[in-house]
Amino acid sequence: MSSHRLDVLAIGNAIVDVIAEADDAFLERLGVEKGSMRLIDAGEAESLYARMGSGRETSGGSAANTVAGLCALGCKAGFIGQLGDDQLGAIFTHDIRSLGVEFDTPPRPDAATARCLILVTPDAQRTMNTFLGAAQMLEPAAIDSARIAEAAILYLEGYLWDPETPRAAMYAAIDAARAAGTKVAFTLSDSFVIARHRADFIALIDAGKIDILFANEAEIMMLASEAQFDAAVDAVAAKVPLLVVTRSEQGAVARAGAERASVPAEPIERLVDTTGAGDLFAAGFLAGHVRGLGLERSLELGAIAAAEVIQHYGARPEQDLKALAGALFD
Amino acid sequence: MSSHRLDVLAIGNAIVDVIAEADDAFLERLGVEKGSMRLIDAGEAESLYARMGSGRETSGGSAANTVAGLCALGCKAGFIGQLGDDQLGAIFTHDIRSLGVEFDTPPRPDAATARCLILVTPDAQRTMNTFLGAAQMLEPAAIDSARIAEAAILYLEGYLWDPETPRAAMYAAIDAARAAGTKVAFTLSDSFVIARHRADFIALIDAGKIDILFANEAEIMMLASEAQFDAAVDAVAAKVPLLVVTRSEQGAVARAGAERASVPAEPIERLVDTTGAGDLFAAGFLAGHVRGLGLERSLELGAIAAAEVIQHYGARPEQDLKALAGALFD
Repeated sequence: MSSHRLDVLAIGNAIVDVIAEADDAFLERLGVEKGSMRLIDAGEAESLYARMGSGRETSGGSAANTVAGLCALGCKAGFIGQLGDDQLGAIFTHDIRSLGVEFDTPPRPDAATARCLILVTPDAQRTMNTFLGAAQMLEPAAIDSARIAEAAILYLEGYLWDPETPRAAMYAAIDAARAAGTKVAFTLSDSFVIARHRADFIALIDAGKIDILFANEAEIMMLASEAQFDAAVDAVAAKVPLLVVTRSEQGAVARAGAERASVPAEPIERLVDTTGAGDLFAAGFLAGHVRGLGLERSLELGAIAAAEVIQHYGARPEQDLKALAGALFD
Repeated sequence: MSSHRLDVLAIGNAIVDVIAEADDAFLERLGVEKGSMRLIDAGEAESLYARMGSGRETSGGSAANTVAGLCALGCKAGFIGQLGDDQLGAIFTHDIRSLGVEFDTPPRPDAATARCLILVTPDAQRTMNTFLGAAQMLEPAAIDSARIAEAAILYLEGYLWDPETPRAAMYAAIDAARAAGTKVAFTLSDSFVIARHRADFIALIDAGKIDILFANEAEIMMLASEAQFDAAVDAVAAKVPLLVVTRSEQGAVARAGAERASVPAEPIERLVDTTGAGDLFAAGFLAGHVRGLGLERSLELGAIAAAEVIQHYGARPEQDLKALAGALFD
């Protein structure tokens, strides 16, 4: 573990997931691409919710899932995110605190807690329809610089880049981290997020403000504007001190300067729902990284955490991740 | 199917389940008996929720689970239950309607939707702590006699017997059913409910007002005041036209006058959470019964529906029950 009070402090969307099963025909009628994430407004959220099947609600949000995984792996983690003052917000707060995550961003009485309507098709792909509500009202004032200085790593999600106010909060957090010597980790989140904000992300990377970057295959190619995976990784690895790229069933690769490592995907018994796979991969990798494990063992931890979360519904770990990590922690 | 517009109209608690894992030590510290159901007030609900682990919310309620199962098995079912005008209430309404259940009891603006805090131990037993909130405010005025007359079977849960107002609503519903020739089915729900209301239940049975009775092993012995299972079944079967008793992994028995049938429990791969087992058994049995299947095939359907629901978290079916029922429906 690091000598900091917190290993990781994350800032992200505070969202409750509503998970329901759906078939491909339903997605076609809806006119959305399978596997994508799109933002919807309150009206669309209501109409889609009325049309979708019976759901189960679990706390989610990409960076929030990652800190939940970090705590499950014995790390000290905190979270900053904006909720509404309502029942879904109370559920989110309860869940993240019960997992050991430090969380005390005050809820807003003037907005509804964000929800992500997740349609899971029989192939375990998830298509996400996100109403951001209160989450997109996270203000720079909610960013506590003193707390950022207490963390070894500040972890940010690309999803928060869309709305203007939280984007300003992210920039303020990055400045606070750099001033305090806290490393900045960033996850690209989604191809469409990159399409909208690629210039911002490239500028941050070129300015040396990103220490650790997480991406999946599609995202790294889009960020690098490269049609070849290896070329994309090479191009970005030259500019980011530590790069981690996940490739679904093909495992993951990491690059740190001249050092390279890769792991295959962890074998699973049954693929149920890929929600949270990337989030938990990041949790596992960072849990290894803050312990000073090398690239390969950190990747292995990521693969183990991701394998656990895709074998059940919901994006938070259910099994004892420390036990699953086993010898890697010895 | 019956010639009625509805096969089954159920009245019960409209509850959202909050399911979290817990160990035996947690139950001991809480001072509650494993496998029991107890009522808690708003303050206790808040304090227990704060102490319990990360949860997942799914719609529940015993009779509501049963009608959800009936619709999944192709029956026409309706539900009457009291919600608050809040997010948990909106979730309950969405879920039950999305399963095809007719439900339009107006929510109350002056009360909070009921929730059941369910602690699942590693042996898959569930211990339920129920805050009834709005559910216990179901008034006789919410009972629509015309709709009861449209149903072949009125299905009532014993849980609603505790608070006085819904108990009055149940009595009104029974009178309406008897006047219309609608059969009255009743599930005893819980040993402690019987301890508190045994005289009421015996009086209803003695007056010939219960046509179909559902119980588990502990409940039937408690109702009959018999320490021997067979003697308890004999005693109650003599007074109720149709009696169905579930015995967990020992299967179930049914009695209708001189006719007797029994089935073993359906084999399962993995026991995850027994929440809803009795509710879905009742759904399967009634789905067979309204189709005119005999006692044994109706019991088989009950066993199949119960086996599905105990292999995942949550008390509503997730797999295609009609497909699981297979040849039984041909």
